[in-house]
Amino acid sequence: MSDNIYETHLEPSPANYTPLSPLSFLARTADVYPHRTAVIHGDRRYNWAEVYERCRRLASALGARGIGEGDTVAVISSNLPAMYEAHFGVPMAGAVLNAINFRLDAATIAFILEHGAAKLFLVDPEFSEVARDALARIDRDIEVIDIVDPYYEAGVRLGALTYEELLDQGTPDAAWSLPRDEWQAIALNYTSGTTGDPKGVVYHHRGAYLNAVSNVLAWNMGAHPTYLWTLPMFHCNGWCFPWTLAAVAGTSVCLREVREEPIFQAIREHRVTHFCGAPIVLNLLINADAKLREGIEHQVHVMTAGAAPPAAIIEGMESLGFDVTHAYGLTETYGPVTLCAWQGDLWDGEPSEVRAALKARQGVRYHMLEGLMVADPETLAPVPRDGITMGEIFMRGNNVMKGYLKNPNTTSKSFEGGWFHSGDLAVWHPDGYVQIKDRSKDIIISGGENISSIEVEDVLYRHPDVLEAAVVAKSDEKWGEVPCAFVTLVEGAEEDPQSIVEHCRENLARFKTPKHILFGPLPKTSTGKIQKFLLRKRAEQA
Amino acid sequence: MSDNIYETHLEPSPANYTPLSPLSFLARTADVYPHRTAVIHGDRRYNWAEVYERCRRLASALGARGIGEGDTVAVISSNLPAMYEAHFGVPMAGAVLNAINFRLDAATIAFILEHGAAKLFLVDPEFSEVARDALARIDRDIEVIDIVDPYYEAGVRLGALTYEELLDQGTPDAAWSLPRDEWQAIALNYTSGTTGDPKGVVYHHRGAYLNAVSNVLAWNMGAHPTYLWTLPMFHCNGWCFPWTLAAVAGTSVCLREVREEPIFQAIREHRVTHFCGAPIVLNLLINADAKLREGIEHQVHVMTAGAAPPAAIIEGMESLGFDVTHAYGLTETYGPVTLCAWQGDLWDGEPSEVRAALKARQGVRYHMLEGLMVADPETLAPVPRDGITMGEIFMRGNNVMKGYLKNPNTTSKSFEGGWFHSGDLAVWHPDGYVQIKDRSKDIIISGGENISSIEVEDVLYRHPDVLEAAVVAKSDEKWGEVPCAFVTLVEGAEEDPQSIVEHCRENLARFKTPKHILFGPLPKTSTGKIQKFLLRKRAEQA
Repeated sequence: MSDNIYETHLEPSPANYTPLSPLSFLARTADVYPHRTAVIHGDRRYNWAEVYERCRRLASALGARGIGEGDTVAVISSNLPAMYEAHFGVPMAGAVLNAINFRLDAATIAFILEHGAAKLFLVDPEFSEVARDALARIDRDIEVIDIVDPYYEAGVRLGALTYEELLDQGTPDAAWSLPRDEWQAIALNYTSGTTGDPKGVVYHHRGAYLNAVSNVLAWNMGAHPTYLWTLPMFHCNGWCFPWTLAAVAGTSVCLREVREEPIFQAIREHRVTHFCGAPIVLNLLINADAKLREGIEHQVHVMTAGAAPPAAIIEGMESLGFDVTHAYGLTETYGPVTLCAWQGDLWDGEPSEVRAALKARQGVRYHMLEGLMVADPETLAPVPRDGITMGEIFMRGNNVMKGYLKNPNTTSKSFEGGWFHSGDLAVWHPDGYVQIKDRSKDIIISGGENISSIEVEDVLYRHPDVLEAAVVAKSDEKWGEVPCAFVTLVEGAEEDPQSIVEHCRENLARFKTPKHILFGPLPKTSTGKIQKFLLRKRAEQA
Repeated sequence: MSDNIYETHLEPSPANYTPLSPLSFLARTADVYPHRTAVIHGDRRYNWAEVYERCRRLASALGARGIGEGDTVAVISSNLPAMYEAHFGVPMAGAVLNAINFRLDAATIAFILEHGAAKLFLVDPEFSEVARDALARIDRDIEVIDIVDPYYEAGVRLGALTYEELLDQGTPDAAWSLPRDEWQAIALNYTSGTTGDPKGVVYHHRGAYLNAVSNVLAWNMGAHPTYLWTLPMFHCNGWCFPWTLAAVAGTSVCLREVREEPIFQAIREHRVTHFCGAPIVLNLLINADAKLREGIEHQVHVMTAGAAPPAAIIEGMESLGFDVTHAYGLTETYGPVTLCAWQGDLWDGEPSEVRAALKARQGVRYHMLEGLMVADPETLAPVPRDGITMGEIFMRGNNVMKGYLKNPNTTSKSFEGGWFHSGDLAVWHPDGYVQIKDRSKDIIISGGENISSIEVEDVLYRHPDVLEAAVVAKSDEKWGEVPCAFVTLVEGAEEDPQSIVEHCRENLARFKTPKHILFGPLPKTSTGKIQKFLLRKRAEQA
């Protein structure tokens, strides 16, 4: 017995201790709001009682196959009801959900299925061909379930059962249990590393629970948002929003095609209040025909993260009437863990350009992120908050991943010194806001000066003819490196490098102005990130 | 090494695991919103940077006295800045905050100081006399710190130092640390139980964190509410709202006197958006002169809990334009853990009387309460959801207390079967909403305060003329309930209600003194137990 009176006879018991898990939110919401609409897909509607029942069917059908704790269930799917349900049904069986990026090639998908040891594979027919090719590269049999979608005709059948037939095998009121321990894995997400094999990022129930709730706090969501699924659920489990929506009893509007027309149509038809998207999606909406926006009068809230969004994109969205929240995070942090918290009393009066520039910063830590700093990558000494000194972004807290699967060396390296090493380079402003200047490998060093490719891209995006821009280093005899810009123009614009260079000179220090301007489409990764390593090769050849 | 790939080389580390503690919210908000107003008291304003600094001063001054893990710091205070700060500074020192009900008598306060082993006692001069009397009953010395308040002239000094002098001894940037373990105690709150001595309810950091966040979800609070402190912070630590306000960077408006005039004045002057209160406080506002409300045009949100509020009070508040949220909980559950979640789509169209009746129910579980049921007190079999069958309310989850201090038998009894036994009797409606029908058999709730009938009976029995006594609740327009005493006199004694009342006043807090004394034989069961349910009927008719 301890001397401490507060540590004596006061142990956890089933009455006062429950492992934190986002599965609890589904059970509660099904209980409190059984008849509210949970998921919309075309003309289909599932209320919370039905979603809960379908998830229990899924969990029990998995359990009947012997799938449980420590097992992986893979899924490749657009944002369909089955994809939403898998976020609950799979962990309710005790298993781990591995949502695979549908833009990956067959070889990478095969690697993931093998590395993650998937026991079952849910396949949306839109991706049945690449899934089939991936499976053909694997020696063992993996049971495939086809997510047949009444709104998608093409694709081939790979498995014996459809998703609905799988659910039919399950029991609607099957018992299920929370994880024994909140540290147990709930999801596995592979990062698209630019070099080497993808790494499997493991999430646990505790982190998923906390970041799901943190989303509500960061975005002031309130109860019953109507959320449009523009963000793929395979991205950090849709930044934990499947679980957030269960917590706040929101409605998920499914979306197969992330194009401007169906997006605006869904916003209008379902009175969507919230959606998330990478800057590229926002750019799509900004440049869309104004007619598509007609009839949308209500306030729509957008959260953007991913690539550092140019201020011009934030300004563009806000000028269309959208309320933009800028967040930032990585696969390793369950999606967003910083936000550019708006300082209304200080910033509301600024002109829109200044407000957009303030908001383009990655900001401060999420409510439930314990630590955020910009520091020396070697010593971990924080840089001064001067807005100038560059350092690496470090995070710590419960919404940092459990680690990389079967990769102890990389895990311990990325956690060295008790902080997660993001690999992103940033400055720390006097007001405590962090601003990304570059990925560490994307920085350009010219004549001994650091040039942030993002800063140059920000300026390029403000040129009226520019639709997309990317800046990389090109070797230079005199300067070591010089910035080289790749530009895609808006429709109808003419290639005029001189006008672009002049625009840069007006807005940037001379040494930051691109010495080369190249036109044409930009190569992108499966997640829509511009592939700078390819551009660097092209730059060297130019 | 385990076979489970998700349990291998994926252990917690400082990078990805932090104990949950509401102290993290203060550190974050001071970092993100240093200049926002955190606390208002009269003409005084403290911003978040200042509050954080003051809490660090407090923690380091406590630490310098050797106060740390496992130690208790008691406080008796109205809702002043020092009381708010103690909710952070005390646990930042590793210690446990014991906020004492200032309406208690000296003997009970002495019991609490002794049982809780308080090492330091913060005293608001308004309660210096009862504090002095309590200290006089204790053999050991407890250092007293006087919370001198520029807005309160009366009271006597008990200690050598004022609160501000104590802070001056501390260091503004003192290092502090989170608890080693989130299960460590953060607060101690005494309930006036139905039998015998008050019980010390222990809260831990994990539960305080989660219920603080749950408040945001339940009330859809959003960022930066302005919160008026009508609810005493000694009540379940103000239902965890000191910590909630740190999470959402809200402003606390202090309030010494819970009277209609200062309440309406504060709402108008500070544009208060949220406050909490027992039904008696709402009744006060409903019956106040309409002139007091003049100039209040903005939406004010009220959360009420405690005694089951009559529908008439909810309707009255809403007719004045207040938005009422009805919650329910106990000291053992960190304050509210159920709410009458509003089903807008189903209920908005009902007439106001029906809406008020729906809202007068205690409702459904909080987002972070794991389980809530109405069940048989012996078998724990849930009652049918028929709105008729009575049972006891049971809860389970992370926002159920750590247990009763130094009281293992009562703790394990109250957690029997893996559920917390609330002692409250209720029905379960077909829509899943719980409604309390009878408070636990004997407790009397007067003006939001629990009165143990047995404690009053104990005093009555000590009156020389009293042979037998039983105390029950009698409905009262102003107080909700008041104690009503049934007394049988010893032979030869004369009916002298005045003498009995005086005897009670000498030995009990004023609010516990019976408002009605009725003489005569007591109805008993065959085994000699007094039949209180019959007395309650008689009391209502009296």
